[in-house]
Amino acid sequence: MSVIMLKIGGSVLTDKQKSSTARPDQIDRIAAEIGDSIDSKKLVLIHGAGSFGHHQALEYGLKAGLSQANIKGVWPTHHAVNILNSMIIDALYRHGVYAVPVHPLSSCVLKNGRIEHICLEVVEELLAAGIVPVLHGDVAADLRKGIDIISGDQIITALAKGLKADQVGVGTNVDGVHAKDFNTIEDISPANICKVKETLIGSRGVDVTGGMYGKIMELMDLASYGIPSLVFNAEKPGNVSEFLQGTCKGTLIHGD
Amino acid sequence: MSVIMLKIGGSVLTDKQKSSTARPDQIDRIAAEIGDSIDSKKLVLIHGAGSFGHHQALEYGLKAGLSQANIKGVWPTHHAVNILNSMIIDALYRHGVYAVPVHPLSSCVLKNGRIEHICLEVVEELLAAGIVPVLHGDVAADLRKGIDIISGDQIITALAKGLKADQVGVGTNVDGVHAKDFNTIEDISPANICKVKETLIGSRGVDVTGGMYGKIMELMDLASYGIPSLVFNAEKPGNVSEFLQGTCKGTLIHGD
Repeated sequence: MSVIMLKIGGSVLTDKQKSSTARPDQIDRIAAEIGDSIDSKKLVLIHGAGSFGHHQALEYGLKAGLSQANIKGVWPTHHAVNILNSMIIDALYRHGVYAVPVHPLSSCVLKNGRIEHICLEVVEELLAAGIVPVLHGDVAADLRKGIDIISGDQIITALAKGLKADQVGVGTNVDGVHAKDFNTIEDISPANICKVKETLIGSRGVDVTGGMYGKIMELMDLASYGIPSLVFNAEKPGNVSEFLQGTCKGTLIHGD
Repeated sequence: MSVIMLKIGGSVLTDKQKSSTARPDQIDRIAAEIGDSIDSKKLVLIHGAGSFGHHQALEYGLKAGLSQANIKGVWPTHHAVNILNSMIIDALYRHGVYAVPVHPLSSCVLKNGRIEHICLEVVEELLAAGIVPVLHGDVAADLRKGIDIISGDQIITALAKGLKADQVGVGTNVDGVHAKDFNTIEDISPANICKVKETLIGSRGVDVTGGMYGKIMELMDLASYGIPSLVFNAEKPGNVSEFLQGTCKGTLIHGD
């Protein structure tokens, strides 16, 4: 089963500066592009939480792990991203893509913030049934910390390994990974990763899961398993469709 | 870890005659009783879908398995029960019970309508963190049928086995299991199960997951693993609290 994995960053789908504020035009456009180009492809979609969940996670201090003081923040944090997830699935339906949520809070266990267990069986069977599983950044149970935040970048890496994905894309709000001179870096591999680290510029807005460098480290890990990935600009109309057709440009992250 | 499992039927929490109609007074009362009596007990809550999901599942014919015609019914069916689930978790929070959803669609795989895989790890770790996992009747991926309906009764049985539950309660809208003369049957075991089958009366309203007899068969299966369960009236104020304290009356379902 040939599997495509696509993550769309929270900065594309939401206004990261304003708590729980979606960008419905972007959500609808991306859903339409997926509808236009999915054909019979097996797609797993992952979305960032953006301003749905990040603000709540920061307010309650969930990254520090569970305490008597912040236990009341778990449900509001999850519920916020669940609302964004429902908007995205509704948009996919409008464009003929039959998708359902697979919530990490229901299906993942972390250990010090890293995925210890992820319920691959559900994702595999939904794909086999012709349904698009949609995962997202979330709060999840943690063996050591009680609770922690799981990023969409970590999910795409773990799932791509588990499902032996054929094509992995990370849609952001920039034209791939930028050096300080604002030129897009065409490819990143173990050969140039140290130089890339020095020259990276930060991503905009609130991000409790790490910015571009954290993203690249997740994708370098994936590349070491023989699975390359493309970081591209999902804000640019047509790029999501081109990614699904294998023609999109961006930064290719690959192994040696 | 001593674990209590409590299922509250959809007929208690919703008006089964009207699509997507909750009974907010009942939801709030039950949440309050849980808040009063949970102390430091490890509780897993399961709720039926009631009129949130049953009507949609019937409308789209999801029990027949996935087809090109009904694939569009999967998300609306799940989304409906997700709304009920959010109401219940909100009510629990109001009464100081920190609960989160564990959606079967995200965490279970079926095979011909029976649970083939359930993500126990998540439920275990949430309990360890002092959080109440809340599961529910749902639509879920099925290895043979593409998709099928999973009942709360099947979930409580599978989880009780997996977690080696110490106490299992099934709260319905009747005083336990009734014979035709309307007297409650005090206990059901392999010794009287055939007689019970003959004398059972039906439960009210729409139920795509089977009525009282299906429920008893699930609980007889659980009893054969050495885990007895109590079917009791969760509509009667005080009974949920009494169940958590181990003093509630109803029908005890047990092994030889």
